[in-house]
Amino acid sequence: MTQTLDHPTSTTDPQQRAQAWFASFEAALRARDVAAAAGHFATESYWRDLVAFTWNLKTVEGRDGVSDLLAETLDRVDPGGFEVAEPPEEADGVVTAWFEFETGVGRGRGLVRLVPAEEGDDGTSGTGDRAWTFLTTMHELKGHEEPRGARRPPGAEHGADKHRTTWLEHRQQEAESLGSTEQPYVLVIGGGQGGIALGARLRQLGVPALVIDKHARPGDQWRNRYKSLCLHDPVWYDHLPYLKFPDNWPVFAPKDKIGDWLEFYTRVMEVPYWSSTVATSASWSEEKGEWTVEIEREGRPLTLRPQQLVLATGMSGKPNLPQLPGQDVFRGDQHHSSAHPGPDAYAGKKCVVIGSNNSAFDICGALWEHDADVTMVQRSSTHIVKSDSLMEYGLGDLYSERALAAGVTTEKADLIFASLPYRILHTFQIPAYEAMAEKDADFYERLERAGFRHDWGDDGSGLFMKYLRRGSGYYIDVGAAELVADGEVKLAHGQVTHLTEDSVVLDDGTELPADLVVYATGYGSMNGWAADLISQEVADTVGKCWGLGSDTTKDPGPWEGEQRNMWKPTQQEALWFHGGNLHQSRHYSLYLALQLKARLEGIPTPVYGLQEVHHLG
Amino acid sequence: MTQTLDHPTSTTDPQQRAQAWFASFEAALRARDVAAAAGHFATESYWRDLVAFTWNLKTVEGRDGVSDLLAETLDRVDPGGFEVAEPPEEADGVVTAWFEFETGVGRGRGLVRLVPAEEGDDGTSGTGDRAWTFLTTMHELKGHEEPRGARRPPGAEHGADKHRTTWLEHRQQEAESLGSTEQPYVLVIGGGQGGIALGARLRQLGVPALVIDKHARPGDQWRNRYKSLCLHDPVWYDHLPYLKFPDNWPVFAPKDKIGDWLEFYTRVMEVPYWSSTVATSASWSEEKGEWTVEIEREGRPLTLRPQQLVLATGMSGKPNLPQLPGQDVFRGDQHHSSAHPGPDAYAGKKCVVIGSNNSAFDICGALWEHDADVTMVQRSSTHIVKSDSLMEYGLGDLYSERALAAGVTTEKADLIFASLPYRILHTFQIPAYEAMAEKDADFYERLERAGFRHDWGDDGSGLFMKYLRRGSGYYIDVGAAELVADGEVKLAHGQVTHLTEDSVVLDDGTELPADLVVYATGYGSMNGWAADLISQEVADTVGKCWGLGSDTTKDPGPWEGEQRNMWKPTQQEALWFHGGNLHQSRHYSLYLALQLKARLEGIPTPVYGLQEVHHLG
Repeated sequence: MTQTLDHPTSTTDPQQRAQAWFASFEAALRARDVAAAAGHFATESYWRDLVAFTWNLKTVEGRDGVSDLLAETLDRVDPGGFEVAEPPEEADGVVTAWFEFETGVGRGRGLVRLVPAEEGDDGTSGTGDRAWTFLTTMHELKGHEEPRGARRPPGAEHGADKHRTTWLEHRQQEAESLGSTEQPYVLVIGGGQGGIALGARLRQLGVPALVIDKHARPGDQWRNRYKSLCLHDPVWYDHLPYLKFPDNWPVFAPKDKIGDWLEFYTRVMEVPYWSSTVATSASWSEEKGEWTVEIEREGRPLTLRPQQLVLATGMSGKPNLPQLPGQDVFRGDQHHSSAHPGPDAYAGKKCVVIGSNNSAFDICGALWEHDADVTMVQRSSTHIVKSDSLMEYGLGDLYSERALAAGVTTEKADLIFASLPYRILHTFQIPAYEAMAEKDADFYERLERAGFRHDWGDDGSGLFMKYLRRGSGYYIDVGAAELVADGEVKLAHGQVTHLTEDSVVLDDGTELPADLVVYATGYGSMNGWAADLISQEVADTVGKCWGLGSDTTKDPGPWEGEQRNMWKPTQQEALWFHGGNLHQSRHYSLYLALQLKARLEGIPTPVYGLQEVHHLG
Repeated sequence: MTQTLDHPTSTTDPQQRAQAWFASFEAALRARDVAAAAGHFATESYWRDLVAFTWNLKTVEGRDGVSDLLAETLDRVDPGGFEVAEPPEEADGVVTAWFEFETGVGRGRGLVRLVPAEEGDDGTSGTGDRAWTFLTTMHELKGHEEPRGARRPPGAEHGADKHRTTWLEHRQQEAESLGSTEQPYVLVIGGGQGGIALGARLRQLGVPALVIDKHARPGDQWRNRYKSLCLHDPVWYDHLPYLKFPDNWPVFAPKDKIGDWLEFYTRVMEVPYWSSTVATSASWSEEKGEWTVEIEREGRPLTLRPQQLVLATGMSGKPNLPQLPGQDVFRGDQHHSSAHPGPDAYAGKKCVVIGSNNSAFDICGALWEHDADVTMVQRSSTHIVKSDSLMEYGLGDLYSERALAAGVTTEKADLIFASLPYRILHTFQIPAYEAMAEKDADFYERLERAGFRHDWGDDGSGLFMKYLRRGSGYYIDVGAAELVADGEVKLAHGQVTHLTEDSVVLDDGTELPADLVVYATGYGSMNGWAADLISQEVADTVGKCWGLGSDTTKDPGPWEGEQRNMWKPTQQEALWFHGGNLHQSRHYSLYLALQLKARLEGIPTPVYGLQEVHHLG
C-alpha cells in the first residue's frame, strides 16, 4: 500500500471513504493499538481535541503527536461509536466529514478532513485515506445532559402539593441563600459577555455558580464605553449560547443595544449575577480545596468560598497606561481609551490620541465628527481592513446570510472554524488578505500617501491572526481610516517623551498642542488580573495569557498549539481564564463549563498535555 | 370528465398534481375567468383568505363563494406567480401542497388540499383535481419588506459624518417626540402579549405606533395574577414573533418568567411602550380621519391623535362581576378571579370559589395547597381535559418537539392550523377528544362520581372549539381537577342567590360559610372595552367580539365564518380588536399589522365581505 493511484479509495464516494476510515480507525482504537490508530493520520496532520480526550484544549501534530495523546488517554477515554453524521463533501481530493462519537463519560462531535495517502506513506489505515485535520469536541456529559428541547423542564408542576413554592419564590429563596448559606461552586469574576455566557452554560448544567461584576447593571461594560462604539464583528459571529439574536438584529450592533441584550439575556437565562460587586482579594487553600475570595457587594464586605475561580475580566487585560513625565502638570483631560467618555465635551478642542489601533480610530473618528481638532500619534505600524471586505473575504463563508443559506449554522461555523489548526491557520488567511489588498488597493495607496504606516502582519496573514497572536495591532475600518487618509484627522509619528502643561511632545521634538490626551495604548496580559487579585506569585505561576507562541511580534515562541491559558486548566489549580470576543465567549464557554461540571460531579478529569509556562506576562 | 377513476391525476405524483392544478388555476385567474377559476374548487370547499385577496380575514364556501370573492377582487388583486413551494404530500388521495404567490401589492403563501373530482363533478379544472381547502395569506407588502435577514439594518453607519446621532441618542429623541411633536399613527391600548406582539410587528414595518398599558412594567399583566399561575398552553404554541423562546424554556412557563420575557422582548424589539398609562376616553372624527384619545401617563393628562386605534385589552374582555344581594354586608374578602392575590392570606380560612373553569380550578388548587378549606360552586357543566392528553392528542402534531423533529416549525404549524376551515374544524377535533375520553376514562369516572358535571362541548368537539366559540367553559387540568375528584376541594351546585355576613347562599338553600368569596365568573365581550372608552353607540355599531356564530352555547348564530371582529376591519372605521392567546397574538398580529401598514402607506385596501353585526355584545 505504497501507492495512491491504484488504491480503491480513489474510486469510492466520499461517504464510503469516510465510513471506511472511521471503521478502520475505531477498530484500531478498540484494539488499543496506538500505532495503528496513529497510522490513520497523514504525515503532516493535526488532531485538535476540545475536552473529549484530553480534558484540555489541545492540538497534537503528526503521528508522533497522535501516538503520544492516545498512549496517555486511550484506555480511560474508551472512545467509540464513531458515526458519519451527514453526507461528507469532497473537494480537490479532500473529504470533509462531520461525525459523532462517544467516550466513557461523554458525547462528542467533530470534523475530519481526509486526504489520500501519499506515495511512500507508511501509515496503517486499511482504506488508503489519512486524516489531515481531526477535530474532536465534547458537547455533553452522559447522565448530565442539558434540560433542552425534549428534556426541557416542565415549568408547571402538575398535581397538587401542599406548600410547594412557585418559580418566583424558588428564585427568591435561591437569591437569599447564595453566598450566605450556600456557597457557589464556581465564582466568575467579570460579567461581560464572557462571564454571562459562561454563567448561562453553568446554569444549564446545574453547576452552582455566581457571576460578579463591578458595574451597576449587566451590559454596562458596553454602555459605559465611548458613545459611538458599535460591534466591529457582524451579528452572525456574535450570538450568545442558547438564544440567538433575532433576524432583525443589526449587522453591527450599537453598544447600548448590546448592553440591553446582555442585561435581559442574563435575566432570561437566570444567571445568578451580582452587580455593583468587586472582588478585592483571593487566595487558594490547597488543604481545603477552596478559594477564599473577599468581595464588596454594593459596598458591603463579604467572603465567598468557591471551589473554582474564573477570571472573566476581559481578554484584553488591564489597561496599559504609560507613565510619562509631565502627566502631573498637563492641564487638560487625559485618560486611557477604556475610560474615554466620548466626544461631546471636546468640540473645538485640540485632541491628541496616542495609538493607532481600533479604539484610537473609533475615538478619533467620533471626536472629528464633533468638530474637535484631532491628531493621531502612530507609534508603530498598524493593520487596517475595510469592514465590508473583512465580511466578504474573512467571515462570509462561515458567518453571514450567505453561510446560513448554505446550511452553515452558527454552531457548525464554530466547529469548522475550530477545526482549522492554529499551526496552519495563517496559510488559510493569507489569500483572503491578498484579495482584500487587491480590492481596496486605492484605499491603501491613499492611506500610505497620507503617511500612515500600514502592515499586513508579520507574515501577511492579516487581522484574525493578529487577534489570536497578540490581540492588538489592527483596525477594522468603519470610516475613521478614511479621515486619516484624507488628512481630516492629522497624523504624527513616534514615541511620546513627555507632556507639558498644554501639549504632547514626541521623540523627534514635535510638540502637539493638546486640551485632551487619550492613551489608546492597549492592554496587558490577563494574568495581570490574577496578580492584582491573588498574588504576583500566582500570576507568574500561571504565566502569560493569550497568544499562540507564533514567534511573531508580541507573540514570542515557543509554539504552544493553543491560546495560552484560555478556557483550559492552568498551572494554578482551580484557576481559569475566560474571555475573548462574542464568538469565543459563546463557543469556548461550552468547554470550560463542561470541565467545571465534571469537577463538580467528581468525574475524573486527568489533564493531558497541561501547558508549560514560557513567559510571565 | 365525469369519472375520477380513469382520470390522469390518479396516475401522476403529488408534485405533478399540484403543479398542474396551479397552472390551470392561474390560467383561469389570468384570463379573469371567474367561473373557470371557481370550477377548480370542489363542491364542498373552503377558501380562507388572510388579507391577500380580501383585505379582510374571510372564509368563503363552495364555488358560489369563490365566484363571489373573485368577482369582486380579481381585477384589483391581480394574483399570479403561483409556485408549489416544497414537495407536496399525499395521503388518502388528498394532496397537501404549500405554495407561494404574488398579488399586485404583496407576496403571499398558502396551503391547499386537493382532492380528485367526484363523479358528476361539473367543475372546470383541466387536471381533474379540485381544491377542498385553500388558504391564502399575505406575508409582506412589495416595497415594504421587513428589515430582516439579508435586509437587516447595518447598525453602525460606516463612514464619518459630522454630528450624526448614535442609536441611543436616536432612541432618546424618538421617546421625547412621541406623543408631543410626533403623533403615533397607531395607538394600541393594552400592552399584554397581544399589544406587545403587534407593537413589535408595527415597529418592524416602520409604522409609527405606541402601546400604552396601565401596569407599571411590561409583563405585569402576568406577574400581578395569582401566584401559582402557569401557562396552560405549551411552549411550542406560545412563541412571540421574531424571537423564539430558547430551547431550555419550560413547557408551561410560570407567570413571572413569562412576565420577564415580555418585558425583555418589548425592549429588545424596541416597541414604543408607555407603562402606567391609562386611556380615559376616545372619539373618532370622520372629518379629520383621526381619533382623539385622552390618556393619563403616570397621572399626567395628555391627548393623543392617532389615525388608527387598536383595543388589545384582553380577548376575555371586562370581568363579569355578578351583582348579588348581601355583597355589601359580607364581612370577608371578595373579588373577581382577575383580582385574586393568591392563597397566602387564606390558610385555615373558608373559601368559596364561584365558577368551575380554568381560573376557578387554579385558584381552588392553590388555596387547597395553602391549607384553606375550599368549596367550588359549579353553576353549569364544564369541560375538562388533562394537560398531558391535550398535548398528545390536541397539539402534538403541530406544536411539540415531535412536530419540530418532523419539520413542522411554529410558522408552518400556524399556517396548517389556519388552513383548517372553522366550519369543519370540529370534525377534526371530535376524534381527538374521543381518544382523550378513552385514555382518561378512569379520571372522568371519578370526577363524575364526585358529582362534577362534565361535558365535551355541545357537539363533543372539546376544548379548542369552546375556546374559539365562547372563550369559556373548560379547564385544562394541571392537578386541581384531581382535588375535586378526590373530594379534597368540596363541590356545591347551583346559582348564588345572596351573601350573608359570613356565607354564600345557593338557590337550593345551601349555605356555604365563607371568609373569602372569589368570583371566577368570567368575562364579557371585548366590545365592552369600546363602550367604556368610546361610547355605547360605537360598541353597538361594532357588536359582539369573538365567537364564530356556531349556534352552540354562548355562541349564537348565524354562522360568521371567522371570529367576530378580531384582527380585521370592523363596522367602525379605524377601530380594531386584537387579542387572544399567545398563538393568536403571534400569528394574527401579522395580518393586523399589514392592514395597518397598507393604510399608512396609502395602499388601497378595499374590504371584501365586511362582517355584519348580529349581536350587540
